[in-house]
Amino acid sequence: MYLKNAWYVAGWGHEIQRSLTQRWIIGEPLVMYRTEAGKAVALEDRCPHRRAALSKGNLIGDTVQCGYHGVTLNCAGACVAIPGQEQIPPSMKVRAYPVAEKWQWVWVWMGDPEAADESLIPDFRYNSEPGWLSTGGCIDVKANYQLLTDNLLDLTHETYVHAKTIGNSAVVETPMTHRVEGREVHVERIIKDAPPPPLFARVRNLDEHIDRWQVIRFQPPANVSIDARGYPAGTEDLEKGLRWFSINSITPVDERTSKYYWTITRCFALEDEAITKLIHDSILATFMEDVEILEAQQIMIETDSRTKAEVGVRADSGSVAARRILEKLVRQESAAVTQ
Amino acid sequence: MYLKNAWYVAGWGHEIQRSLTQRWIIGEPLVMYRTEAGKAVALEDRCPHRRAALSKGNLIGDTVQCGYHGVTLNCAGACVAIPGQEQIPPSMKVRAYPVAEKWQWVWVWMGDPEAADESLIPDFRYNSEPGWLSTGGCIDVKANYQLLTDNLLDLTHETYVHAKTIGNSAVVETPMTHRVEGREVHVERIIKDAPPPPLFARVRNLDEHIDRWQVIRFQPPANVSIDARGYPAGTEDLEKGLRWFSINSITPVDERTSKYYWTITRCFALEDEAITKLIHDSILATFMEDVEILEAQQIMIETDSRTKAEVGVRADSGSVAARRILEKLVRQESAAVTQ
Amino acid sequence: MYLKNAWYVAGWGHEIQRSLTQRWIIGEPLVMYRTEAGKAVALEDRCPHRRAALSKGNLIGDTVQCGYHGVTLNCAGACVAIPGQEQIPPSMKVRAYPVAEKWQWVWVWMGDPEAADESLIPDFRYNSEPGWLSTGGCIDVKANYQLLTDNLLDLTHETYVHAKTIGNSAVVETPMTHRVEGREVHVERIIKDAPPPPLFARVRNLDEHIDRWQVIRFQPPANVSIDARGYPAGTEDLEKGLRWFSINSITPVDERTSKYYWTITRCFALEDEAITKLIHDSILATFMEDVEILEAQQIMIETDSRTKAEVGVRADSGSVAARRILEKLVRQESAAVTQ
Repeated sequence: MYLKNAWYVAGWGHEIQRSLTQRWIIGEPLVMYRTEAGKAVALEDRCPHRRAALSKGNLIGDTVQCGYHGVTLNCAGACVAIPGQEQIPPSMKVRAYPVAEKWQWVWVWMGDPEAADESLIPDFRYNSEPGWLSTGGCIDVKANYQLLTDNLLDLTHETYVHAKTIGNSAVVETPMTHRVEGREVHVERIIKDAPPPPLFARVRNLDEHIDRWQVIRFQPPANVSIDARGYPAGTEDLEKGLRWFSINSITPVDERTSKYYWTITRCFALEDEAITKLIHDSILATFMEDVEILEAQQIMIETDSRTKAEVGVRADSGSVAARRILEKLVRQESAAVTQ
Repeated sequence: MYLKNAWYVAGWGHEIQRSLTQRWIIGEPLVMYRTEAGKAVALEDRCPHRRAALSKGNLIGDTVQCGYHGVTLNCAGACVAIPGQEQIPPSMKVRAYPVAEKWQWVWVWMGDPEAADESLIPDFRYNSEPGWLSTGGCIDVKANYQLLTDNLLDLTHETYVHAKTIGNSAVVETPMTHRVEGREVHVERIIKDAPPPPLFARVRNLDEHIDRWQVIRFQPPANVSIDARGYPAGTEDLEKGLRWFSINSITPVDERTSKYYWTITRCFALEDEAITKLIHDSILATFMEDVEILEAQQIMIETDSRTKAEVGVRADSGSVAARRILEKLVRQESAAVTQ
Repeated sequence: MYLKNAWYVAGWGHEIQRSLTQRWIIGEPLVMYRTEAGKAVALEDRCPHRRAALSKGNLIGDTVQCGYHGVTLNCAGACVAIPGQEQIPPSMKVRAYPVAEKWQWVWVWMGDPEAADESLIPDFRYNSEPGWLSTGGCIDVKANYQLLTDNLLDLTHETYVHAKTIGNSAVVETPMTHRVEGREVHVERIIKDAPPPPLFARVRNLDEHIDRWQVIRFQPPANVSIDARGYPAGTEDLEKGLRWFSINSITPVDERTSKYYWTITRCFALEDEAITKLIHDSILATFMEDVEILEAQQIMIETDSRTKAEVGVRADSGSVAARRILEKLVRQESAAVTQ
């Protein structure tokens, strides 16, 4: 199940260059490149002639020449040359996907191009906001993308999965609240006067109790940003505290494979490269702990023949709300198509 | 096709310890461990909350804490804690499988717990009988479990597959008889005054002709013990002869993958470690010869699109009888469920 | 989709010896060997008894003894011995496939043995013609066999895929013609007064413009020979020119896997081993360029859920005609079977 009328991250801006590169998004193959003028392009990666992978061909100016028989397509997907003939059949074309570049990432709209609306790109401004510094990466995960958004919307798992870095018992002991706003879900947990998790302590020398904020925002289809804060308890003093955004966008490769794009972007100690490295390495290790759990969960779901439903708990409310929003959007989209 | 109301070997007793370990039996995932009091436990390895693999979690006392969100289940499969909430929904539970430990192995009952009957554990007493010494192992086989029981119930294959160890032409030249007793099949071949197979000669220095007994007992779903004897011809003299039980239990992992648990347990030369090693290594090599044949046979069956039936021979009678018993039991079981 | 009433290459003559070897053709497993008299034999590689792979057994004289229980079959597929019993059920037999040896290759007829007609073996005489020398090989390709015949029937791809060896822009710039003759397709391209492709230049020191002939002959199901010539422009002087046949037979292993048997057989510089090596290595490298394209194309076809048809170009006419012939033959064959 995928939402087609949506933006998906296809890569970091610096990954799309003057060469052809293949990407798979929601089961569809794309060939991507940058025009001479610097604009990122995404075309269907199947030559309309014999379905050869265009990404095996050549970038010539702003056009893609198929590496098999030389059919050449421009960045709108229209055929501009067929070797050995003058006439170009109108059906000799590929789909061109709307592309936008924002917040360090290249986004592709997988649905109706007419409906592409850049205001639907999630608000990940802190990836490129002055005064903020981000570090991040992309992890290949053998699990459905919704298992990843579930994960990010219920941070009680930090207590169990991430005790070495960002979890401790204070997380699970503090209730969260959620509210739905249009297509978005907001989840909030404010932990008062509790020990800092290990990574917070290392990054900011926070030895004493802290107040910790987890303010989570879900934007469909699979975008989650977390405004994470930790202050000496009762102070709200950012000078001595920590604030970063955990920014996450999950791109479904197919139903059981995902690309997990992530950054941590912070507003303190911007020049301290050791801190950048500590955060990068610790968060990557943290997310790899998730990956181990999620890939095993994916196997359990795939091999499950029972009809018994999963059993909800209170902490699921945010992830359940997000799933409902996505299901509703997919349902509306498919109803619109069949009309 | 599996019999659910049956005991399957889930491991050697020493393999189940104070840690969580995963097992797959008839397509179902189990998490296994031992309680503080030493009792082996098997639960479904899917957390009822979000189907995470419980085996990735923590053993705390006699309970399993899910490694994802901390849902905690006792050894009866009941939920005893949900982090962040007091109320425990009655459906928050996993299936607990009856477990028994007998004859060095841990057995799990995969069907209706009410029907679990330890008297149905096959009689493998020689695995742990005073005056007997066993050596054995477990082999992963990429073949359906019934191909393994077929193999053990028609030992004419020894002549062709195992000429280096336990086979010679005397086996195939001597007819076998079989009889069905309730759920069991008994197959007997008494070879008189024939050369010993190579391994018998090495183990007991049997250079002259021997009388050789193969007394086979099948107990469903996939248990076969073979009372194997070789005496100097006409003597029945165990002092100069060989007697061992070949004890075999096949656990279906899924329809095309099996765990082959085996022992050879003997009543002679008990202190002779070189003999133990000779038997262990020779029988393992022997069974690996079977594995090569059976894995190729599995491929031939899976890729066969014809409707032509297999053609029986006289020596099949034992394996055919065993298949009929198992099919009948599965049919009865499924009829009982649908009533 | 396969034509069954057809000859497929099962190997080089020298590969079939006095031992059992397995081959898969159009999804069916064969066991092949040579009789004491030297005749190649192909039987279904499934023992009629329990479907063990006969190729794991023993060749005894001209018979195959199953390596599992000793059922023995002659080279007509009839059972000649069942260990432990006198009586042989008439159904204890395997299919014997007609085999012919011609043009260095062993051919197997996969359809009705009554219909086997050696005159349908494609005319690949130059593989073993006096005055000609061939070099070749067999490449495993993870693509449907028809993608390979398409490739060979539209050589415009040489310009794009093989610019290092046999392609240049002259190929794509010169139109081809095709004609259908019965079950065959003939495609012709005569390039006049154009630069030689790199490999021609190296093999025959052709620095000046050449005339180049590509005379292609398709014989179903998947046989393509190419009469390739290059002369100093306007001369037709073979002494200073190049002429070879590119002979190609594609054997479907299954719908997505093929064996690509190929030779280049030439009528010049027969004693020059360096030329033989240059041609062999260059053509193998050339075909591996095709393999990369075709395996990617196979993935694009398998993952394509759209209903949109491929868009033809003028240069497809030969490959389209060949596909139509094969489809018609398959349709006729399946109509004949259902009558």
